[in-house]
Amino acid sequence: MAKKYVYLFSEGNADMRNLLGGKGANLSEMTNLGLPVPPGFTVTTEACTRYYDDGEVIADEIVDQIHNAMAELEKVAGKKFGDMENPFLVSVRSGARASMPGMMDTILNLGLNDVAVQGMARLTGNERFAYDSYRRFIQMFSDVVMEVEKAKFDALFNAVKKESNVEADTDLTAENLKEIVRRYKELYRKEKGEDFPQDPKTQLLESIKAVFRSWNNPRAVVYRRMNDIPGSWGTAVNVQAMVFGNMGEDSGTGVAFTRDPSTGENKLYGEYLMNAQGEDVVAGIRTPNHISHLQETNPEVYQQFVEIAEKLEKHYRDMQDMEFTIEKGKLYMLQTRNGKRTAAAAVKIAVDLVDEGLLTKEEAILKVDPKQLDALLHPTFQPDALKAAKPVAKGLPASPGAAAGAVYFTAEAAKAAAEQGSKVILVREETSPEDIEGMYAAEGILTSRGGMTSHAAVVARGIGTCCVAGCSEIAVNEKTKTFTVNGMTFKEGDRISLDGSTGFVYSGTIPTQDPALTGDFETLMNWADELRVLKVRTNADSPKDAAQAVEFGAEGIGLCRTEHMFFEADRIPAFRKMIVASNEDDRRKALEQILPMQREDFKGIYEAMEGRPVTIRLLDPPLHEFLPHEDRDIEALASDLGLSFDELKSIIAGLKELNPMLGHRGCRLAVTYPEIAEMQTRAIIEAAIQVKKEKGYDLVPEIMIPLVCEAKELKYVKDIITGTADRIIEESGIELKYLVGTMIEIPRACLTADEIAAEAEFFSFGTNDLTQMAYGLSRDDAGKILEDYYEAQIFESDPTARLDRTGVGKLMKMAVELGRNSRPDIKLGICGEHGGDPSSVEFCHILGLDYVSCSPFRVPIARLAAAQARVTELHQHDNLGQK
Amino acid sequence: MAKKYVYLFSEGNADMRNLLGGKGANLSEMTNLGLPVPPGFTVTTEACTRYYDDGEVIADEIVDQIHNAMAELEKVAGKKFGDMENPFLVSVRSGARASMPGMMDTILNLGLNDVAVQGMARLTGNERFAYDSYRRFIQMFSDVVMEVEKAKFDALFNAVKKESNVEADTDLTAENLKEIVRRYKELYRKEKGEDFPQDPKTQLLESIKAVFRSWNNPRAVVYRRMNDIPGSWGTAVNVQAMVFGNMGEDSGTGVAFTRDPSTGENKLYGEYLMNAQGEDVVAGIRTPNHISHLQETNPEVYQQFVEIAEKLEKHYRDMQDMEFTIEKGKLYMLQTRNGKRTAAAAVKIAVDLVDEGLLTKEEAILKVDPKQLDALLHPTFQPDALKAAKPVAKGLPASPGAAAGAVYFTAEAAKAAAEQGSKVILVREETSPEDIEGMYAAEGILTSRGGMTSHAAVVARGIGTCCVAGCSEIAVNEKTKTFTVNGMTFKEGDRISLDGSTGFVYSGTIPTQDPALTGDFETLMNWADELRVLKVRTNADSPKDAAQAVEFGAEGIGLCRTEHMFFEADRIPAFRKMIVASNEDDRRKALEQILPMQREDFKGIYEAMEGRPVTIRLLDPPLHEFLPHEDRDIEALASDLGLSFDELKSIIAGLKELNPMLGHRGCRLAVTYPEIAEMQTRAIIEAAIQVKKEKGYDLVPEIMIPLVCEAKELKYVKDIITGTADRIIEESGIELKYLVGTMIEIPRACLTADEIAAEAEFFSFGTNDLTQMAYGLSRDDAGKILEDYYEAQIFESDPTARLDRTGVGKLMKMAVELGRNSRPDIKLGICGEHGGDPSSVEFCHILGLDYVSCSPFRVPIARLAAAQARVTELHQHDNLGQK
Repeated sequence: MAKKYVYLFSEGNADMRNLLGGKGANLSEMTNLGLPVPPGFTVTTEACTRYYDDGEVIADEIVDQIHNAMAELEKVAGKKFGDMENPFLVSVRSGARASMPGMMDTILNLGLNDVAVQGMARLTGNERFAYDSYRRFIQMFSDVVMEVEKAKFDALFNAVKKESNVEADTDLTAENLKEIVRRYKELYRKEKGEDFPQDPKTQLLESIKAVFRSWNNPRAVVYRRMNDIPGSWGTAVNVQAMVFGNMGEDSGTGVAFTRDPSTGENKLYGEYLMNAQGEDVVAGIRTPNHISHLQETNPEVYQQFVEIAEKLEKHYRDMQDMEFTIEKGKLYMLQTRNGKRTAAAAVKIAVDLVDEGLLTKEEAILKVDPKQLDALLHPTFQPDALKAAKPVAKGLPASPGAAAGAVYFTAEAAKAAAEQGSKVILVREETSPEDIEGMYAAEGILTSRGGMTSHAAVVARGIGTCCVAGCSEIAVNEKTKTFTVNGMTFKEGDRISLDGSTGFVYSGTIPTQDPALTGDFETLMNWADELRVLKVRTNADSPKDAAQAVEFGAEGIGLCRTEHMFFEADRIPAFRKMIVASNEDDRRKALEQILPMQREDFKGIYEAMEGRPVTIRLLDPPLHEFLPHEDRDIEALASDLGLSFDELKSIIAGLKELNPMLGHRGCRLAVTYPEIAEMQTRAIIEAAIQVKKEKGYDLVPEIMIPLVCEAKELKYVKDIITGTADRIIEESGIELKYLVGTMIEIPRACLTADEIAAEAEFFSFGTNDLTQMAYGLSRDDAGKILEDYYEAQIFESDPTARLDRTGVGKLMKMAVELGRNSRPDIKLGICGEHGGDPSSVEFCHILGLDYVSCSPFRVPIARLAAAQARVTELHQHDNLGQK
Repeated sequence: MAKKYVYLFSEGNADMRNLLGGKGANLSEMTNLGLPVPPGFTVTTEACTRYYDDGEVIADEIVDQIHNAMAELEKVAGKKFGDMENPFLVSVRSGARASMPGMMDTILNLGLNDVAVQGMARLTGNERFAYDSYRRFIQMFSDVVMEVEKAKFDALFNAVKKESNVEADTDLTAENLKEIVRRYKELYRKEKGEDFPQDPKTQLLESIKAVFRSWNNPRAVVYRRMNDIPGSWGTAVNVQAMVFGNMGEDSGTGVAFTRDPSTGENKLYGEYLMNAQGEDVVAGIRTPNHISHLQETNPEVYQQFVEIAEKLEKHYRDMQDMEFTIEKGKLYMLQTRNGKRTAAAAVKIAVDLVDEGLLTKEEAILKVDPKQLDALLHPTFQPDALKAAKPVAKGLPASPGAAAGAVYFTAEAAKAAAEQGSKVILVREETSPEDIEGMYAAEGILTSRGGMTSHAAVVARGIGTCCVAGCSEIAVNEKTKTFTVNGMTFKEGDRISLDGSTGFVYSGTIPTQDPALTGDFETLMNWADELRVLKVRTNADSPKDAAQAVEFGAEGIGLCRTEHMFFEADRIPAFRKMIVASNEDDRRKALEQILPMQREDFKGIYEAMEGRPVTIRLLDPPLHEFLPHEDRDIEALASDLGLSFDELKSIIAGLKELNPMLGHRGCRLAVTYPEIAEMQTRAIIEAAIQVKKEKGYDLVPEIMIPLVCEAKELKYVKDIITGTADRIIEESGIELKYLVGTMIEIPRACLTADEIAAEAEFFSFGTNDLTQMAYGLSRDDAGKILEDYYEAQIFESDPTARLDRTGVGKLMKMAVELGRNSRPDIKLGICGEHGGDPSSVEFCHILGLDYVSCSPFRVPIARLAAAQARVTELHQHDNLGQK
């Protein structure tokens, strides 16, 4: 039997979403539920894929199936396509598996032609209505299907209005509209070199092709990339008998949600317009009524709609977003789907549905997109205040949250002002590691250059500070301490507000409100914690971050980077002295100065974590990152260090690397300068001993060696650590256990994980570097190619942002297996940025890691994602069990 | 039973080389053969490993076994250790599996003490001899075992000579020597805080420990690294009864080879000294006699020695290097081993031994170290002329061969002079891609900076030009066009000579002689070709290189890099215009200019290869490599291109990358600029069509896409290539097959090789990049850490120089298996620098690759290594079959 590419609504159901798309599957489901749905059929997503496989052609067998289905519809409706007496009109709508803005949406009134329009006029007794529908159809079809510019039609339309001295569209007469139709068809002929297609079958097939084509239009491709939707899914097309909301005051159209999509409150929410088609509601020319108003004007229809809404919500066990039309007092349902909602509403609805007995906790867990949670964890603008504000610029939404404060242009000035109690926004062209303290001090960060993975963006997300990055509209002048945008100039101390979730920059102060992590949020997260088996730790480098992460539910620190500590003003001089030292003695002297400060760092972190596990990574970045590169700064530093400019310049030149990512960093620093590792070990262990003595926590510090590519290298550095640590512990007279483990972030470490596990008590996957090396693609340099790669559909998303299961995942799997073979009780975690990405968290769960670690503000996301991974796994088992 | 750590010579044999070391195994073998070997025993290599495992201590059980063996020896010799009447004296010598200079060599006369020396004097009736032996022993033991400086003893020795008015050592009296012994012992006490050990057992154990320790002394570690000897092997120690060549004129000592080690001629070759110990022969104070002289003075001993030599050569079926001593007219054999030989000798001996029926061809193949062949492929200095020359400086032997010519300091000047017919030496601080043409034109290259993997070194090895790199003794002044060394100044046109095999630089012209690739060399290589299954191709970018490689036996081109072509003076302007173009049209115009030149390149290469397969790689390096970086050069180029300085500077800044190795290069260039790939495809295919028409070769060009990390990326670029190629072929009306394949040089390509093989008709492993990415270590930056890594014994050799089977090899194996699963007839090769490294060639054979590809001068090495890999494999099968 030939493959079935076309399904009548009565042949499908909600489970056939992959084949029929979301809209089609739900139209079928509503049809089956006996709801008033105008008859129709769905051309499947497989037809779309086939269309592309066949070289953008609809195969004959599919065309036949479409025509057969059409004939079936005509039979049901008792009307005929293109008929002069009783013409059959349809709408054509796209409908992918996932809702996808950016694609072709809708063509209405398809089937109208010079003959049918007369039939329609006769049938409705409303010539004006018939020609109004026809002119709308010609314009829509020409624009959307045939790519004739809409503006050209608008110009003709306005010309007729002007000639007829008509103000409002509704004042146009049937004759006016006939003239418009005439001019439209003329325009069409001029533009396309042929007459406007009169055959409804041609209109239909061309429209279906247009929907298929729109699957790959640029906006749709971008949307898919941003939402992780594979290009291979394709879209379905729904063809449905027209019903008319614009047939008079007993007709209308509207949209409604079963619950309030912004708060989650359990009451019908929506709006409608009488005597209108869907596009009028969207166009916003007339102000729609609230759905409750329908109860007064049309109580029976309202009551019927309320019952349908309740039935649908119960049936789908989720909040529904519905479209309906009333034709001459009769209600028709045109769409239902699970409604989009704000983060707050998502959480409330999930919890309420459990309370109402509609969902289990496991099911509720799956109802909230973990990525949405981010919005709940940061300050937001007070909604009313925000309504009044108008943005002055827009950059990249690099780190979520809202902030308002006085602008400062250097890290020092920002820090100083913050210490005086000011709320501060740091504005820079771009930030660098030297700006860390200023970034910590600021409420928000605004840069004019750099992307979503620029230094400013990465650090800001890490510390949960709102950031708008790469705002190229503003011109920052760091010398004069001003920035200008659209002719406005802002100087130091001027107030601005930033929305890091949208990228908008506002002039002046918009008041913010703090997030609430209690109530429904707390309930849902508790359910997640009960369900998940994957632990969630945090990446935190300061007691402040650590405390924040604990508040968000972190169960330990998976990555404490020690390099940020060296950038702080009180220690960078000593650290630079260490770097430029020409012999070990001088290096040791400089390190001696840093030791007490570093020890205090760790004490603070241990105290904030109250006995939870803490993994501390030894110094990782190449040393040249700690030295200045501008002549002016080199000059200043040279005089501080008692070196000549040339001496320092030559030291810096000597440290330069062609490929610093593949250079002298990570444990390679510890091999060449064991004294750094010794000092850090001393600080880690001494701090632990002190905190253990003072607080009685059962501390087990985990010392992590970065960038290992070979077991012997790990052993060499481990011996330095244990030699130092064991001596200190013995001298202390206290018992202290500690672990030594390694980052797994170099491909060869995965390939030789059995040998490495023999020396390592834990592995922590550093998937940032691992991904970059596995792909041979540096994140810092990928910007030059990514756009082209998206366009060529080689990459669907940035491989450094989402864990690549096919390649990098295979390396990880190998490392997990080899590592566990060689050391069955090895502790396995991940501390790359992927640790906070839900899909990556799921993969870590599948791999059987013990924990993921992510920045504090991603901890709740990871907790929920880990629970979802577990629930999904259990469902799969159930499903397998049923077979 | 306890493990056996000590073997009497009568208990071992030649097959126990791994356990007894080379020297010990051969002493045992000679003992078994009934040859006159002084009795002795061997402490095994396992004892050495155990010594290190136990923390540098000799375990009691091993000490016991040593004492037991010693007692056995005493019994055989009928003498007693430390005996006043008839003292037993032994030598202690190291002996690893492989001969290893840099380790402790020998301690003679062990067993002497204040008492035994008297016994010895009495027994020999020669007090002077006895005390001379004693003072030598004290000095040797103190120096080698106890680390008391040799110079301090020399000072005492010279003082006594002066006080006694003695000129020659031999004029010292017994009394003088007693005084020296007294002073030596006093010095020892002062230095070590204790008396010189009188107990021979203490002397023995300390000496054995010293041998074990010397296994890890820095020189030995360096030697091992350079010769790929694992640190885990350990060394054995041989303890042997002393025989004395210095007991009068009827005694003597010597060394001899069964054939001439420099020519391979089949006649006894060696020298000896009467009345001397081994060290005297080495010291060179007296001139030794040629071995043939012994026939006249001592015909019986000579005859006996000749017979032993013949017996040993027949027994070992290889040229032997022997040490012997004559004690009072009696011949003793102290060592035999396969003799080191020059490359020429190695080839001649291998071929002769087959002719003589001693070896099969398979065995002969294994007798020549492939690495040695290099020396046979390059010009050398005429030996007599070389003897008279004295080097003025020494750099790194970066590319072998000898060259003489006039010095030039710029590529342009060198090229111009060469075109006038001069022989030219290019002298630079360091070279860069812009110097390519000058490098091609030069006979030799000398740089004052850069290591064995610097640009100069890599390019020179590639094109087979002699190069001395990193010669830091010379100071190059490129402005004044001079270089100075040790006060001498050389200016443009002055003549120098370079030896790229030793690193020596000479003033003036030393005549050179060309290599001969005929005779025995040809015979041996033919045998290799009959045996091997792995094909050998070459990496060649020019017709000249290609022709050279064919002469060396290349069976195709495995890698033709197209980037060098773009650096040539006639096309770099157009290529730069392409790079700075702001739109596709301008880029295409610039590429149009390059097309005919590029087509000629490929024609030349096809013609040189006469129908052999040719793999051409699309443009690979990042575009910024083609633009200048100095302001002066930017200024000049900007005016050439009609750009402002600032515009060009900003274009260059825009191309800058943080990690260019992981950046915008390889096939990523083809994705962003498909027009480059189109132009190259056009040139490749059009050239092939022309050559096919003109010459009738059955050409099948292989187009190789570099740096692929993802199958879709490969498909995208492949579609550009096939789209272009198929059109051209169709238009030509000629039939032409071509292949499209990819480099496998990114870890992810190995991990997803099944998907990639679906699109690729061949794989070529680019192990340079693959290794760097697998290790996360850039070859350009590794210099900063490698020395420390060798010292810490983390790396035993540079991982980028020799294929890492454990990690990188695992990736390759995966790629081979996945690739073959998905496309069983896929062609597999390697074109990284490893393609010319014998151990790596063996690994490629084991993996089952179809071919290796290496630079022309490595082709014979690869041919021989491939044959050896095959022979080794067959032997293993034989051995397995026998079990």
